[in-house]
Amino acid sequence: MTKVTAQLSVSLDGCYTGPRDDTGDWMQGPEAPGFFRVTRWAVDAMAWRERQGFAGGEQSADSEIIAEMFAAAGAYVMGRRMFDAGEVPWGDEPPFHAPVFVVTHRPREVLERQGTSFTFVTEGLERAVELARAAAGGKDVAVAGGGQLVRQVLTAGLLDQLELHIAPVLLGDGQRLFDGGLGLGADDGIELTPTRVVDAPGVTHIRYTVSGRSKLALDDRGASGELVGQ
Amino acid sequence: MTKVTAQLSVSLDGCYTGPRDDTGDWMQGPEAPGFFRVTRWAVDAMAWRERQGFAGGEQSADSEIIAEMFAAAGAYVMGRRMFDAGEVPWGDEPPFHAPVFVVTHRPREVLERQGTSFTFVTEGLERAVELARAAAGGKDVAVAGGGQLVRQVLTAGLLDQLELHIAPVLLGDGQRLFDGGLGLGADDGIELTPTRVVDAPGVTHIRYTVSGRSKLALDDRGASGELVGQ
Repeated sequence: MTKVTAQLSVSLDGCYTGPRDDTGDWMQGPEAPGFFRVTRWAVDAMAWRERQGFAGGEQSADSEIIAEMFAAAGAYVMGRRMFDAGEVPWGDEPPFHAPVFVVTHRPREVLERQGTSFTFVTEGLERAVELARAAAGGKDVAVAGGGQLVRQVLTAGLLDQLELHIAPVLLGDGQRLFDGGLGLGADDGIELTPTRVVDAPGVTHIRYTVSGRSKLALDDRGASGELVGQ
Repeated sequence: MTKVTAQLSVSLDGCYTGPRDDTGDWMQGPEAPGFFRVTRWAVDAMAWRERQGFAGGEQSADSEIIAEMFAAAGAYVMGRRMFDAGEVPWGDEPPFHAPVFVVTHRPREVLERQGTSFTFVTEGLERAVELARAAAGGKDVAVAGGGQLVRQVLTAGLLDQLELHIAPVLLGDGQRLFDGGLGLGADDGIELTPTRVVDAPGVTHIRYTVSGRSKLALDDRGASGELVGQ
């Protein structure tokens, strides 16, 4: 059955890239150092696989996770900013090899590349997910990013599974996946269930099923007044 | 050799309690629901309940982690706000069973309780850590909390080990362990090394060695233009 999934590399303090700055060259700006640090595990794994021709030999846990991620996705949903950043560098054969639905306000013809099509959806996020679901052929709909879109899909209640790749670094400042913009009151939370933890040397992969919103019970397990506070 | 350690229960979005509110009764305020949610794993564990003089609880991986935490600590450093919150409820036999050094601006005589002493240190955090180190008898100095103190110890370069207990919940708003107040530039990070991951059913425990500050290399591993962007 098709699930809507997302995965993102984040620092231990929850940043998926450095601080946003749209004023200059991205590679020279404040976003890049943080981005390359938190995604280093993936770039290393991909480079390794490319060198191996993606066949046989010893594979790292990281490499397997990337292969599994590509294999599970039948279609993608993507934010406009991520598409803009990738359109040129991805070249003639983008890495998705599946239909991609870009959430945008700017209408545009479908862009066909080798193995990947980009369809520009101006009717909103839910419509993009719906189109991706129909195109996924029973496989998963993967939210490709960026972080803003992952957060929107989650808060809209559309996300079934979230996998975080937690890089062991604190960036201090940066764009955070969860920055308080979840629209939750002090008594509300979004509950998840960890379903898989992969403890790789340079990154910890935690996969969650999203259980959904629920009230936070004021439940001290009968220990009221005796708690070791934080 | 004595290490300076800290451990904290946090939500997946990095909060150790709900939003701060000093205006009313803590139990009825916005902090409590988040606090009880992220610490639920500990309150349920047998080792924690034993320390508090409560019966019951579960013997589990979580319980072992708590027992280990208490066993490793030869002395504690604590923030003033945490002490104030705990002084009355901890009663005649606080759960620490070791010397505790409270960082505060208010001088006060040493407070002796059964098995635990509280020494009030007005000469700052470094002095409190120094005193705790001398009192630890070769065991570890544990930063008991709160979150602000953990952050201060970390940014002061005094922390050797950090263990986070990541509860599978998003609180949206709350007091964050890492909220950007780390004093790092966009090119700087604090590097850590994961040394142990315990994948318990309701919480993921990740222990890190703190490696320290370092420059974030703008290193794309030669993959520029081929990245699956975020």
